[in-house]
Amino acid sequence: MCNACIIEGAKHHMLSRRSLFSGAAMAGAASVAAGLSAGIIGAKPALAEASGRVVDLTHTYDSTFPTFDGKPGILMEPDKIFDKDGYQLYKLTIFEHTGTHIDTPLHFSADGTSVDELEVGNLIAPLCIIDITAKARDDANATVEAEDIEAWIAAHGEIPEGACVAMNSGWTAKIGQPDWRNDAAGNLAFPGFGKSATDLLQQTKAASIGVDTMSLDPGNSADFAVHYSWLPSGRFGIEGLANLESLPPKGATVFIGAPKHRGGTGGPARVIAVL
Amino acid sequence: MCNACIIEGAKHHMLSRRSLFSGAAMAGAASVAAGLSAGIIGAKPALAEASGRVVDLTHTYDSTFPTFDGKPGILMEPDKIFDKDGYQLYKLTIFEHTGTHIDTPLHFSADGTSVDELEVGNLIAPLCIIDITAKARDDANATVEAEDIEAWIAAHGEIPEGACVAMNSGWTAKIGQPDWRNDAAGNLAFPGFGKSATDLLQQTKAASIGVDTMSLDPGNSADFAVHYSWLPSGRFGIEGLANLESLPPKGATVFIGAPKHRGGTGGPARVIAVL
Repeated sequence: MCNACIIEGAKHHMLSRRSLFSGAAMAGAASVAAGLSAGIIGAKPALAEASGRVVDLTHTYDSTFPTFDGKPGILMEPDKIFDKDGYQLYKLTIFEHTGTHIDTPLHFSADGTSVDELEVGNLIAPLCIIDITAKARDDANATVEAEDIEAWIAAHGEIPEGACVAMNSGWTAKIGQPDWRNDAAGNLAFPGFGKSATDLLQQTKAASIGVDTMSLDPGNSADFAVHYSWLPSGRFGIEGLANLESLPPKGATVFIGAPKHRGGTGGPARVIAVL
Repeated sequence: MCNACIIEGAKHHMLSRRSLFSGAAMAGAASVAAGLSAGIIGAKPALAEASGRVVDLTHTYDSTFPTFDGKPGILMEPDKIFDKDGYQLYKLTIFEHTGTHIDTPLHFSADGTSVDELEVGNLIAPLCIIDITAKARDDANATVEAEDIEAWIAAHGEIPEGACVAMNSGWTAKIGQPDWRNDAAGNLAFPGFGKSATDLLQQTKAASIGVDTMSLDPGNSADFAVHYSWLPSGRFGIEGLANLESLPPKGATVFIGAPKHRGGTGGPARVIAVL
């Protein structure tokens, strides 16, 4: 399918969902405006049983952190220096989609939800982890498919309301090495979601997906089918997660510290799990 | 006291604390390196009783958001545009201390802890709210003093381990108005912490302080006494919190989404409370 077709399809899908949910959106508008959630978050049951163990799912990043286009994702210039000014701070130049970061609907649609408009209740979410490390060892462009989601549901029950469904491909262990981003020939090569999986997740109450690689779609994707369907549907993604291998498939709660600059398409985030 | 004296005093204080805690720091080094917390967080009891209600403590910010020096704290330039490129993103220029943001030890010391080095366990914290709205109504430069902390402890018990102790001065209601930052004469005027309060908090297990105004010190501060003592002691601060008035003095847990750029002195953060 050509890109224009994909974009048109995505826009139509987004508009349909907007019509469908406009009543609920209006009912929640007053509380959202005040920064309050419209209700009780889906993470409550897991939080109630939390042991209090914390796992940081965020990579530290700097100008050497790998990016999709290969250019530095952040530059830091001293603006004030302690020895001269008595305090210090940096002027940062950040391309929004670098490090461990958020992809909002607006990143892949003309008028989707921006990062400051994400429903705050979806930023504290039950974390469902889909482990594809076995197939990713054999194929750097392995994907989460519908049957992986079905297997998770069969083992652990329905996807909870507001869940973040995250792919663990074992990629955290590669960070700092060239093969986190490329194959030996220098082509982008890393696991991601297949559209069969996100199409299935569209039928659940999941609010977001996450990957431990650079992109929601696999490195060898030609059409960015997941970006062009999942994001315009009004849901969001997290790219570049770390340390998922130290969490169980179910039971953790993830705090998604999405930045809040007005109209942003996403941005470097702090993501932390409580188990 | 001259600035140089304050800085020297702060450095000495920091070195003393570093010596004192070096054993514990070394013991925790391996787990911190892996992005894992060194233990169970202090927020566990409150999380276990959480109702699941969420309150966003973060202001949406843009180039018009008030800053300490009066210059825009963020600039957004389109880098990719949907109609032309099929997706979109911004190039951001951010001065670290803008919007709802973190102040790390490194902001006010030559070699303190940077934002990526903050102990992750302290980013999910019991939230203690000190209400000074009554005195802030009469004095725009009102301060939290030791007796306000003592009164909180008398009413609610000891400050919990890892707590974030936040000032509610009622300033959220002023956002978007000139008097969030200035008095009628155009001088900086807003509430903050007094050093008597943070000196007392140094004797507790609090890990951070927060304010609903532009600065940890009040607007009329001549010596930034809180910045120069609290931060170099190895603890951190949050400035520009929103919506504290909708939370109780005790019982909420705060998720502090501090950014994680290497060596940063702080930065815009996403801060969310669960009650």
